[in-house]
Amino acid sequence: MRLLRVGPAGAERPALLEEDGTLRDLSPLVTDVDGALLADPAALAHIRAAVGARILPVLDPAGLRTGPPLTRIGKIVGIGVNYRDLVVQSRVATPAEPVVFLKAPDTVVGPDDTVLVPRDSVKTDWEIELGVVIGRTARYLRTDEEALAAVAGYVLSHDVSERAYQNGRNGGQWGNAWGKGKNYETFNPLGPWLVTADEIPDPQALRMRLWVNGRLMQDSSTAEQIFPVAHLVRHLSQYMTLHPGDVVNTGTPAGVALARPEPKPYLRAGDVVELEIEGLGRQRQRFKDA
Amino acid sequence: MRLLRVGPAGAERPALLEEDGTLRDLSPLVTDVDGALLADPAALAHIRAAVGARILPVLDPAGLRTGPPLTRIGKIVGIGVNYRDLVVQSRVATPAEPVVFLKAPDTVVGPDDTVLVPRDSVKTDWEIELGVVIGRTARYLRTDEEALAAVAGYVLSHDVSERAYQNGRNGGQWGNAWGKGKNYETFNPLGPWLVTADEIPDPQALRMRLWVNGRLMQDSSTAEQIFPVAHLVRHLSQYMTLHPGDVVNTGTPAGVALARPEPKPYLRAGDVVELEIEGLGRQRQRFKDA
Repeated sequence: MRLLRVGPAGAERPALLEEDGTLRDLSPLVTDVDGALLADPAALAHIRAAVGARILPVLDPAGLRTGPPLTRIGKIVGIGVNYRDLVVQSRVATPAEPVVFLKAPDTVVGPDDTVLVPRDSVKTDWEIELGVVIGRTARYLRTDEEALAAVAGYVLSHDVSERAYQNGRNGGQWGNAWGKGKNYETFNPLGPWLVTADEIPDPQALRMRLWVNGRLMQDSSTAEQIFPVAHLVRHLSQYMTLHPGDVVNTGTPAGVALARPEPKPYLRAGDVVELEIEGLGRQRQRFKDA
Repeated sequence: MRLLRVGPAGAERPALLEEDGTLRDLSPLVTDVDGALLADPAALAHIRAAVGARILPVLDPAGLRTGPPLTRIGKIVGIGVNYRDLVVQSRVATPAEPVVFLKAPDTVVGPDDTVLVPRDSVKTDWEIELGVVIGRTARYLRTDEEALAAVAGYVLSHDVSERAYQNGRNGGQWGNAWGKGKNYETFNPLGPWLVTADEIPDPQALRMRLWVNGRLMQDSSTAEQIFPVAHLVRHLSQYMTLHPGDVVNTGTPAGVALARPEPKPYLRAGDVVELEIEGLGRQRQRFKDA
């Protein structure tokens, strides 16, 4: 199923996009798309049955905003340096284990919402990522099978980053706690859809592309991930408890501005970024000054 | 006012502790203590008036659990290496600007709840901290006065940390993204009270002490902070938007296990940690194996 949330920011309603493009209103069945819904197999089965019976009201998509497909996100876990092609392009060391940071859920906006370039920013960068949405509590998992069973679905995620601030002015010893540069308002467009895991048979074979002002800048695949989804979820569950509705941004491939030769083409107000992952839909953001 | 939440975990009710120790039930007035309440001056004035009139039901504190004094926390921002005495004891460089990381809100428990030592952990450490609770949206603030006006109140916060995992196995380049080691379940006891800012005239003059199994291990003051509260809130607001109900853990002073000579006295199951900050109350946690 492709679950989404449509309507004005802060007042979205749950919806479902059928194979043939019909948009159905889910609000007669469920209050919202969140961790509680994803952790409730009966509610999900209820939705599947109603979809099969085609009894839900049809929504007219004209003029309807798409919000983030998930709300009440408890935490967003980010993974750094997780693509082989990025390591090669950036000439950095391959991490021995996943590099983990947190990103604030209040950065999340809809897939086509405006993204704000921070004041005084000179190094705002794009990062297309496969987002993993957790559906079951994950705690000290032992196997990849347990890890994949904890995944409710997948979502296209844009982990916008400010590179000058990401490393701060503290130098090597304290410089990369990564709390800065990842957490600006609007820095995590999410969606358009939360695609349930049953529709993504192999999360390690998804083409991913990103364009800036129409020029293709990232063109890779989740096959390039150093630590695949199952490994990440299992690994993370040794270091924190993952809860339904948490999101893991699994890293970005080659082609970000930071990895390119000088002068690096960082983003400015007026730029338009478009991105898509196979099966997960497409985003389009216009950047403006904060 | 000293606001708190009492009752079983997940089913706390809002309450208020009066000067004379009387515990009053706030549930006739407000649904909970959260960012929405803190951002609502009329609701806070309403509470003050009801407290003055002594019309709220009295609660019997006997056998009543104290929960975290704040719920629906959007994000917890952690500050690293922010005490002069810690820098001296640890023989590390003084940061040129605040070291910032995020901590997951799902780590929060009540002040006297059990804390779980992670499986295989050998370096679980204590960190007494002054927690700052945000009451107004803070975005690109320009002055310390604006920063302090955004503070709703203060809270005793225990930023429990696993040091072996905090730095991971990746070494210098990727080693300290700090996503690991800070985010285990139960790793942020909070409370007992949220003390409104009007009752803390100088947040830079609060004595703070922590004991492990009755032995005094940290004995310092917020006067030792390298970057004081007003500076931190103003600085953070250049790198992220702070929202009502967000918490800033402002760093820990000297005396943590990590800063002590070998063999460092890290925490194990059975240990009891007690901590208090002047005016903000006291916590007591027994540590158990996860």
